[in-house]
Amino acid sequence: MRLATRRDGSRDGELVVVSAHHDRWVSARGIAPNLQAALDAWDQLAPELARLDRELASGAAGEPSDFARLSAPLPRAYEWIDGSAFVQHIELVRRARGAALPENLLREPLVYQGGSGCLLGPYDAFPLADEAWGLDLEAEVAVVVGDTPRGVSASRALDHVRLILLANDWTLRELVPAELAKGFGFFVAKPATSFSPLALTPDELGAYWREGRVHLPLESSVNGRRLGEPHAGEMHFSFGELIAHAAQTRSLTAGTIVGSGTVSNRDASRGCSCLVEQRTREVLAGGAATTSYLKVGDRVRIEMRDPAGVSLFGSIDQTVVAA
Amino acid sequence: MRLATRRDGSRDGELVVVSAHHDRWVSARGIAPNLQAALDAWDQLAPELARLDRELASGAAGEPSDFARLSAPLPRAYEWIDGSAFVQHIELVRRARGAALPENLLREPLVYQGGSGCLLGPYDAFPLADEAWGLDLEAEVAVVVGDTPRGVSASRALDHVRLILLANDWTLRELVPAELAKGFGFFVAKPATSFSPLALTPDELGAYWREGRVHLPLESSVNGRRLGEPHAGEMHFSFGELIAHAAQTRSLTAGTIVGSGTVSNRDASRGCSCLVEQRTREVLAGGAATTSYLKVGDRVRIEMRDPAGVSLFGSIDQTVVAA
Repeated sequence: MRLATRRDGSRDGELVVVSAHHDRWVSARGIAPNLQAALDAWDQLAPELARLDRELASGAAGEPSDFARLSAPLPRAYEWIDGSAFVQHIELVRRARGAALPENLLREPLVYQGGSGCLLGPYDAFPLADEAWGLDLEAEVAVVVGDTPRGVSASRALDHVRLILLANDWTLRELVPAELAKGFGFFVAKPATSFSPLALTPDELGAYWREGRVHLPLESSVNGRRLGEPHAGEMHFSFGELIAHAAQTRSLTAGTIVGSGTVSNRDASRGCSCLVEQRTREVLAGGAATTSYLKVGDRVRIEMRDPAGVSLFGSIDQTVVAA
Repeated sequence: MRLATRRDGSRDGELVVVSAHHDRWVSARGIAPNLQAALDAWDQLAPELARLDRELASGAAGEPSDFARLSAPLPRAYEWIDGSAFVQHIELVRRARGAALPENLLREPLVYQGGSGCLLGPYDAFPLADEAWGLDLEAEVAVVVGDTPRGVSASRALDHVRLILLANDWTLRELVPAELAKGFGFFVAKPATSFSPLALTPDELGAYWREGRVHLPLESSVNGRRLGEPHAGEMHFSFGELIAHAAQTRSLTAGTIVGSGTVSNRDASRGCSCLVEQRTREVLAGGAATTSYLKVGDRVRIEMRDPAGVSLFGSIDQTVVAA
């Protein structure tokens, strides 16, 4: 199933089921008022949503889709927990700001708790109050979990994955060093995160979803210029390990979103999913950083396609505007 | 108004309005299904809740209360943003773990993003999987805000405060140093936070709520033994300043909870709101830390009373149990 949230004036929007070709959709209002409500009673409602999906596929239900009406699948979520599971990204970014690598980098997942009360839709303008803050994208894969008990193992954690989607975890790079120096992690350096139009049940990814990772490249571009398409399967920690880490000392409620962190590969030819990596590579290549952070008017596009070229989650396509 | 959430089997519980003496309450089901729904449409619903409160006061509505049925006012919240606005606490705790003080300690609020998907009620047992994790309480004052725009000023931020309550921001002290060394802030060191039975509209505090601070002492005890009653008015940063800082680069949605951080005073005779401060004071007094962190079976009580001895928020009263 491909699920999305259509704006209807309410805070949570209206849940819609979207067809395989993304050209048609059907309201799921009769089953659940919104995606959070569906996640709250997933075991009971998922079969009903699947039935609606079959009606949509058969042509017995549905209407032409209009993706411009979509918000984030969860316009407000109870938690947004973002991992940093691509070790190459951590190495590059910390090198860029002269910070030490975590001693247990390869043994224990690194996650931070992000703001989740106001999440941006895939086509929402991104409001930037000050270009000197160094706005960067971070293209990621994320999962939405159901109720996940405290102390869950990494292998059992994957049983709680309900949906998979893409995220752009916007970062204000120039605010990061001073903020992290205070010792409490990110806060103002992480404005509202954006999500892809569609959230997919894992079965829609077939064999591309295995070992708790999405084995496909993630494409990012800025102003139509390729930034990269690193392979999301190169995650050092699986989503199972990220979820288990996040649930080590507390339970996670249904609708909690867990992110992979910026997708990043050792193979530099695959490019990047954020500008700070590209800048660091420019510096490491012996020069100065020539890539700028984002300015007002810049456009960021993030998408994931299967080998046949089919866009799986729809695209995140946002323009930076003056706040 | 005194608002609370009665467990009814649903995820968000049932909103109730509680009488001034806490002995009676009335369901607000006819106005809003739960507290989050009331906060979502506060301007419209608060007058209706006030009318219900008057009916309760006059005896025209209501029934005897049974606080044992209460959960946290918001059993799940969209954000829990915890400040550390008592500078004395930061100084003592960082001294205890040999960490440097933030360079801009007195100029810029320190906040962290906490988990908010599973919050504990005032009488819920606290499940502890490992006593070696060093369980500590942190008694705090917190506010619930309505929709708060990005970039709000500290003075205007106070207009968005809808409710005031107490929190126990449980901390696993022995997990803190390794976690903060990773650079992304707290995560597993901060299990589910607990909240007081009652959330009060600011007017209920009268002159005790002024300048964005609650000017009353906050009492904490462990196993019936006084830990302290530091004065919550000694906040270095006001709630207005904490909210403005939190909203610097993103909006806050209705129902976001913002905490003061552990209430702590320069006057050592007022005692502490957490055990790590007491331990640090024992060490600074020239001895060893003799106060232990919490063990299974320990009972923590947190309460705030006015000078007449009236408990304003009801008590947080929790026992640590083996997980």
